[in-house]
Amino acid sequence: MERTMLKRVLIANRGEIALRILRACQAKGVETVAVCSQADEQAMHVQLADYVVHIGAADAKRSYLNQAAIIGAALLAKADAIHPGYGFLAENAGFAEKCAAAGLIFVGPQPETIRLMAEKARARQSAIEANVPVIPGTDGAATTDRAALAQAAENIGYPVMIKASAGGGGRGMTRVGGPEEFAEKAMTAISEARSAFGDGSVYVEKCIENARHVEVQVLCDGENTFLELGERDCSVQRRHQKLVEEAPSPGLSDKLRKSLFEASIKLCEAVAYTNAGTIEYLVDMKTGEFYFIEMNTRIQVEHPVTEMITGTDLVAEQLGIAGGEMISFANARPSPHGHAIELRINAEDPAMNFAPSPGRIEALVLPGGPGIRVDTHCEVGAVIPPYYDSMIAKIVVWGPTRDQAIDRMIAALKATRIEGVATTIPTGLAVLQDPDFRAGNHHTRWFEQVHLARTSA
Amino acid sequence: MERTMLKRVLIANRGEIALRILRACQAKGVETVAVCSQADEQAMHVQLADYVVHIGAADAKRSYLNQAAIIGAALLAKADAIHPGYGFLAENAGFAEKCAAAGLIFVGPQPETIRLMAEKARARQSAIEANVPVIPGTDGAATTDRAALAQAAENIGYPVMIKASAGGGGRGMTRVGGPEEFAEKAMTAISEARSAFGDGSVYVEKCIENARHVEVQVLCDGENTFLELGERDCSVQRRHQKLVEEAPSPGLSDKLRKSLFEASIKLCEAVAYTNAGTIEYLVDMKTGEFYFIEMNTRIQVEHPVTEMITGTDLVAEQLGIAGGEMISFANARPSPHGHAIELRINAEDPAMNFAPSPGRIEALVLPGGPGIRVDTHCEVGAVIPPYYDSMIAKIVVWGPTRDQAIDRMIAALKATRIEGVATTIPTGLAVLQDPDFRAGNHHTRWFEQVHLARTSA
Repeated sequence: MERTMLKRVLIANRGEIALRILRACQAKGVETVAVCSQADEQAMHVQLADYVVHIGAADAKRSYLNQAAIIGAALLAKADAIHPGYGFLAENAGFAEKCAAAGLIFVGPQPETIRLMAEKARARQSAIEANVPVIPGTDGAATTDRAALAQAAENIGYPVMIKASAGGGGRGMTRVGGPEEFAEKAMTAISEARSAFGDGSVYVEKCIENARHVEVQVLCDGENTFLELGERDCSVQRRHQKLVEEAPSPGLSDKLRKSLFEASIKLCEAVAYTNAGTIEYLVDMKTGEFYFIEMNTRIQVEHPVTEMITGTDLVAEQLGIAGGEMISFANARPSPHGHAIELRINAEDPAMNFAPSPGRIEALVLPGGPGIRVDTHCEVGAVIPPYYDSMIAKIVVWGPTRDQAIDRMIAALKATRIEGVATTIPTGLAVLQDPDFRAGNHHTRWFEQVHLARTSA
Repeated sequence: MERTMLKRVLIANRGEIALRILRACQAKGVETVAVCSQADEQAMHVQLADYVVHIGAADAKRSYLNQAAIIGAALLAKADAIHPGYGFLAENAGFAEKCAAAGLIFVGPQPETIRLMAEKARARQSAIEANVPVIPGTDGAATTDRAALAQAAENIGYPVMIKASAGGGGRGMTRVGGPEEFAEKAMTAISEARSAFGDGSVYVEKCIENARHVEVQVLCDGENTFLELGERDCSVQRRHQKLVEEAPSPGLSDKLRKSLFEASIKLCEAVAYTNAGTIEYLVDMKTGEFYFIEMNTRIQVEHPVTEMITGTDLVAEQLGIAGGEMISFANARPSPHGHAIELRINAEDPAMNFAPSPGRIEALVLPGGPGIRVDTHCEVGAVIPPYYDSMIAKIVVWGPTRDQAIDRMIAALKATRIEGVATTIPTGLAVLQDPDFRAGNHHTRWFEQVHLARTSA
């Protein structure tokens, strides 16, 4: 690949990830172009960027999802690349193609790789072909044929999951406990998939109960360097949304960890993966078996825990790879050191079933000191608008051991004060203080089925 | 030593270091007792402590320097130890003795060690006896006899420094360029020493020009573990006050580094040092020679740069040692990794010759993201009172290399916004952007003689 070295990057996102990308650009001496909707004109990434282009109304469809406006802004500002962040257009293969057609570098994998991994049935087929274990299921045969689906469920054995072929990130997933509820749930799942993704085809998978969500961070340079940077555990989830993430995964054996890494690299090699990505697995801690769920072809919200234990800057590496540079540690993969935990602080009200709580931040005191990293785009007076996700900040802690990291997070959360909106700080504190979490007894359904049930009793 | 394990610690300080000690206590599960003057009733360390005792008026002599009030507060709150932080009573041997007499553990070395190192002539003699190189000078013969001092200066060779025996931390030091100005400067130095420290005795030392200030962090458990945790370089100074600190020291050869570490451990063993301490040296980068300046028998403002490259918590270790525990890494000294830089942000006006700029903080946006640590006790609405030091925050960055750490600090400072008081951010930014600093061409007089002269031209 030619060494192009990016000079000016348009950041096609908002919130904390826009600021995170801006910091990576600054670290590499790359100029930044921010885009903003009408709701974000005072946002911190707008204040700090070298150039700003206003792209439309608050509604994301008219701004951060408006592909033509964003590509137009990049051309206007003479950017040579677009970083999509996460969410919005980050996993939109068509957008990546439009960037290329406009002569812009899309900071991410090739469009065909994005498309391959976005279609869950094809992604699963890729895993099978790379000898990566998948969850027993209908092997990619997505359909809207309910009779065929029901037969497949019988063959696999209940409980099963019905998954939308075009879903992902926790969306478009339905658990079916037994044959008596299959017909109704399948009908609902198909109809919801059609309305949410424009594609009603679904498939059936074995439901792996009480499993851990473990994901492997990879970084591939588009030539022949395929690196893993360790795993993250994101098993504390509410409605398939991650609440607490950590690295490394507690209780994982060295053997299982090695197998996960090998499987991840095999899949990357098989699909000639480029740039940063994450391969997500369900891990049965009892049997030591693991199953491919999906691959996210972008930077993830929880990437800082990997950065904290490896001393890397994953977003800077994304920019480097996109510009044709070598991965900065291609010849010396950093050894993970210590333990990191991230908590997402959202403007949601735990007392009101996590209803969004948009509004103006009236007071903001964030934690600091040793082992504390804060990623936030908020300041006193900033507004969490109702149009987008409700994230206020990510608090990330590092400690020599997991116990010390937990203690630091508890102290950090007690030192954090946010007024003006309700937040998920009480939720995070309760999880961190739960003996089950400290003991590593949690799994993907633990938060809803065990923790919430106990703490609200 | 008995394993006492502290249960409740009184923090005999204010500002960012009070908060820092509070965090270390929380990390160890130790309860905290804050003390506060009338000026600090809303301070963050007061908000976050388990218990608070009001100890007096804003004037430090009536609060943070009031030994009886602080010991009384510790007894009232049933604390078992007092952490003095830095400044105030941190190097007051009499206070450490009073703590012991009251049955309280003083978190620091033994009173006799504090006293030994506080008296510069005796400290120098200890270094000589431990075969640690000292600056050629009058070998501890402090006097007010100006004729004897002038003869000593002749013997040593100009330029020389006249130093107050009871001075330290940059106070009580006078440079004399030649014999023609000796008499007048000696008279002034003696009279200033008498009024500042109650002791007019001074001594004469060779003035080492264009040297680096390099200091070695040590941690000793009071039994037989004497550990060094690497060096810090604090050569960017204005009027002997450190502005920018970093670890490791740029350009130091491995051989010289090893010699500094060996000398430091020898001195600690010779004086049976206990707890955390810092041994300061002047290093002549041309000859590779180094000279003992003094030992600080307390935690230092710049300790975070060491923590950033070693992954340690020095204040937690101080508490552990004071409670009779082993140093947590006694059997595996952490290997330094990467490079860290700290900038002190003070409420001072660089445009007004760094005059203090007390006042209310009206806006506060602090940097975050990868490799950034912030230690601050400030929030929007906090007041920097005129009574104490003017520190607002310490910004600490880490990077895999020194160049990357410098780039990160520049970006971090550009993202920092403080309104309501003047700050030293522009000063820090100018230093970090100075090619001399990046090249490592700086020395202890570089900021005043080279950098300021160039940037104000």
